[in-house]
Amino acid sequence: MPIVELHVLQGYGPEEKRRLCEALTDAVRLVVPAAPEAITVMIHEMPPENYARGRRSRAGAPALADPAEIVRDYLRAMEARRTDVAQGFLGDGFTMHFPGAPPMSRLQELIDWARPRYRFVKKSYEGFDAMQSSGSAALVYCRGSLSGEWPDGTAFDGIRFIDRFEIEAGKITRQDVWNDIAEVKSTA
Amino acid sequence: MPIVELHVLQGYGPEEKRRLCEALTDAVRLVVPAAPEAITVMIHEMPPENYARGRRSRAGAPALADPAEIVRDYLRAMEARRTDVAQGFLGDGFTMHFPGAPPMSRLQELIDWARPRYRFVKKSYEGFDAMQSSGSAALVYCRGSLSGEWPDGTAFDGIRFIDRFEIEAGKITRQDVWNDIAEVKSTA
Amino acid sequence: MPIVELHVLQGYGPEEKRRLCEALTDAVRLVVPAAPEAITVMIHEMPPENYARGRRSRAGAPALADPAEIVRDYLRAMEARRTDVAQGFLGDGFTMHFPGAPPMSRLQELIDWARPRYRFVKKSYEGFDAMQSSGSAALVYCRGSLSGEWPDGTAFDGIRFIDRFEIEAGKITRQDVWNDIAEVKSTA
Amino acid sequence: MPIVELHVLQGYGPEEKRRLCEALTDAVRLVVPAAPEAITVMIHEMPPENYARGRRSRAGAPALADPAEIVRDYLRAMEARRTDVAQGFLGDGFTMHFPGAPPMSRLQELIDWARPRYRFVKKSYEGFDAMQSSGSAALVYCRGSLSGEWPDGTAFDGIRFIDRFEIEAGKITRQDVWNDIAEVKSTA
Amino acid sequence: MPIVELHVLQGYGPEEKRRLCEALTDAVRLVVPAAPEAITVMIHEMPPENYARGRRSRAGAPALADPAEIVRDYLRAMEARRTDVAQGFLGDGFTMHFPGAPPMSRLQELIDWARPRYRFVKKSYEGFDAMQSSGSAALVYCRGSLSGEWPDGTAFDGIRFIDRFEIEAGKITRQDVWNDIAEVKSTA
Amino acid sequence: MPIVELHVLQGYGPEEKRRLCEALTDAVRLVVPAAPEAITVMIHEMPPENYARGRRSRAGAPALADPAEIVRDYLRAMEARRTDVAQGFLGDGFTMHFPGAPPMSRLQELIDWARPRYRFVKKSYEGFDAMQSSGSAALVYCRGSLSGEWPDGTAFDGIRFIDRFEIEAGKITRQDVWNDIAEVKSTA
Repeated sequence: MPIVELHVLQGYGPEEKRRLCEALTDAVRLVVPAAPEAITVMIHEMPPENYARGRRSRAGAPALADPAEIVRDYLRAMEARRTDVAQGFLGDGFTMHFPGAPPMSRLQELIDWARPRYRFVKKSYEGFDAMQSSGSAALVYCRGSLSGEWPDGTAFDGIRFIDRFEIEAGKITRQDVWNDIAEVKSTA
Repeated sequence: MPIVELHVLQGYGPEEKRRLCEALTDAVRLVVPAAPEAITVMIHEMPPENYARGRRSRAGAPALADPAEIVRDYLRAMEARRTDVAQGFLGDGFTMHFPGAPPMSRLQELIDWARPRYRFVKKSYEGFDAMQSSGSAALVYCRGSLSGEWPDGTAFDGIRFIDRFEIEAGKITRQDVWNDIAEVKSTA
Repeated sequence: MPIVELHVLQGYGPEEKRRLCEALTDAVRLVVPAAPEAITVMIHEMPPENYARGRRSRAGAPALADPAEIVRDYLRAMEARRTDVAQGFLGDGFTMHFPGAPPMSRLQELIDWARPRYRFVKKSYEGFDAMQSSGSAALVYCRGSLSGEWPDGTAFDGIRFIDRFEIEAGKITRQDVWNDIAEVKSTA
Repeated sequence: MPIVELHVLQGYGPEEKRRLCEALTDAVRLVVPAAPEAITVMIHEMPPENYARGRRSRAGAPALADPAEIVRDYLRAMEARRTDVAQGFLGDGFTMHFPGAPPMSRLQELIDWARPRYRFVKKSYEGFDAMQSSGSAALVYCRGSLSGEWPDGTAFDGIRFIDRFEIEAGKITRQDVWNDIAEVKSTA
Repeated sequence: MPIVELHVLQGYGPEEKRRLCEALTDAVRLVVPAAPEAITVMIHEMPPENYARGRRSRAGAPALADPAEIVRDYLRAMEARRTDVAQGFLGDGFTMHFPGAPPMSRLQELIDWARPRYRFVKKSYEGFDAMQSSGSAALVYCRGSLSGEWPDGTAFDGIRFIDRFEIEAGKITRQDVWNDIAEVKSTA
Repeated sequence: MPIVELHVLQGYGPEEKRRLCEALTDAVRLVVPAAPEAITVMIHEMPPENYARGRRSRAGAPALADPAEIVRDYLRAMEARRTDVAQGFLGDGFTMHFPGAPPMSRLQELIDWARPRYRFVKKSYEGFDAMQSSGSAALVYCRGSLSGEWPDGTAFDGIRFIDRFEIEAGKITRQDVWNDIAEVKSTA
């Protein structure tokens, strides 16, 4: 039965309300073993003049972009080797953590590091999981399999991978990558 | 400002309400860029007789256990080689997916598979992330580093890993593991 | 989806809350074509000190008895010829309206009037319908069939009847009766 | 003091909201002995995007017509001998139950049955009572007196009657009729 | 944390809502030692058709003018010797109570009484305090210092004063005045 | 019709809730011209575990004492010349402002200043008005008439006075006094 009522300042669009309804439903389901169909969410919107905290009206802030969409767009730009576009998704202090590599902070470092390792790589996605951490970052996990070509031109595919992203204020601030490339190579 | 009101049947304890408050706060923060201190959650509890759906009173269901705790307890049992205890955390259809291994479904398979690979392994955790998926499973990600001994008795540590768990109705139904063991071995 | 929240002073028992949940659900269904399972009712109870109208706390009033139960008990007493008990269910200004009889106000009038018409009569009920009118009276309709004996001792049964009752402040103030006795007799 | 809050999807008109307010007020009065003036109803309307059940937005359904109006219109058409119009108010499986008649399902049957009984009949109404049953049907009771002409052309009036109607999804599915015609005839 | 929700019929403007938010916040602060920033007010507005008391819709009444503004405007008119304007702020039964004067009810009485006492007087305000009394009157206190000229043309200033006003239905019905004029004169 | 709902952490007593109901009702009446009987207040109390701001439960703070009671008790102690008791009601930075006196901060200063002015003075109260200011202080106004004896032993009475108090965190921090003593003396 759980019923969730959310009171927010008006200004959120249908897509943002959909994300709120889903996230609030799933938040309840993490603790209460109710079927999704038994969980109701109502969003009550208010014009700023109908809301006050500390005796003062407050204006609503624009919604945060969907962090999973941010990650998808970033990965798409990287796969297309559009580092200029990809760079636009990165926040201050961005770091990357790849298997067998020191932490890197610039996309060019990554490209240089990857060159002796594979000609190119493509990701097929099995799933994206997004959540807000208890801290300031939203988290996005995406996993699936890699395909591409080794430096010698032979093809590979079906190599398991998982990426973890931290997104703060709409910018990616950290990427952690795990995959089975070494495992596959060692058994090649 | 967002204010969340949750109406539930009574019967949840302080710890369960804490988890609900946190999950609901974080659900809002995934979309609305409000500081946590600006997000209020109120839980309204009702005795069963004060709630009806379809003209009938309903009884509340016991809370689901914290999926992160389930995973912690399972991993602790595995590390202590208490497979009997660990087995108790597993649900029907459980499968494990390790780097370089075929899918396994029984813990003994895992132990047999690991024996030629390392004498033992311990996990140091950097973080746990838990969320409800849009499907029936709760998800737990845990990551950190592995230490242990290779079959020849030499020690290793600092090997990055990440595990992904699916938990349904309080039981682990799937474990996916990625780590840098092959990477480390290949550069040894 | 409709959700009904009722705020009342505390003091109502589970049975009274059940009646409230049912009546509120059905009130919604009279206008909104929702399945009962899609209609939720929540009752929020308050101690008197948590409620004020006109700056003053208010005490809750005891619930009204279920008018259908009042009618059932009254009819049971009449059938058992316990006019003393039946009289206790009647309010000031009570009147009865039977087919072919002038309005009557005392139970003894009814008994005298019925004596030449049948030795006794029993009611089998097909259904009770109770509602609050827009005025001060609750209404109860009951319908079914009559069985009994004519003055000459021959039996009858299966004669359709319907009664309409008005109940104010827990007392029956009016009874209207329709049945097919004359129809049956005329075709006998 | 009782206060009723109804949350519904937007799309109901002023007349439909008036019916909801009245029905909810009367639902409370059936149990709580509060003066109508002490009962407040608030309707909170929501656009579909602000409401989710099972993680999905839901659209509101058009209101059900007022069942008392359906009955009034049907009876008006019957009195005007507009059987084509009257037929439009009847649902599948419609049956009629009149004194001394077998159950009938077609209006022509009723007309044929009535012909030897009276030339015409008109209804004067004393009151309509409408409610939602606990099942799928709305119920309408109407009562008053009949006037008309017997087959021999003599007039009659003041004959008590009561009708009971069941309405499902806006269509009449059952009509039960009781009256004092036989009583009056037997004493004529 | 306190959260205040106000349900009112629609029709109040932003300025009136601001006054409501402030007054409600301060009402809570009179009892609960919360920082203003921890007190949230939400105003839920309803069209008349969404609200019923006693089964009937109700129309909202226009807001009362800010009583402090009424007093400011009245005092401004008096200082400008616009008694015609000032008179428009006064309600039936208005009385004035000045130090050493009998109660007066007409502005001309005040002017006549003041003439031998000072040529003119101006008010500098230190503060206005407005509240609703438990009775029908709103109360406004204003205090500060008087400057002006004595009848002999010598100037004075810095004389403390306080006025208390009762306002009913937007009209001033009573003015009480205290000041240090006599004290200052006695020590002159 | 206005309806006020207050959500607070549990822990307030009946007297404190009464003060909240009154203050909230009067806050609405300052803007909305509704009869008190048309204004409803509901207080919803929550255990700390059912409330979170910033993901954390919060404990409620004890209620502030009624500022009018604080002032009454202080004035009673002063009249009884219990300066030790009166001192206990005063906060840091307390100042007094009397007609014709420089600001004073210690009660003994007041006593010394008053000695040549009157032997004793008693207050008869016409009314107390209390409110929360927009700042941190609660305000109490009390007014009425003074009686007592002049230094020469002759009695006086009926001298108008008004006091204004500022109370912060339960302590009086400022007292302003106006009265007609000089006026009365000057006309004696």
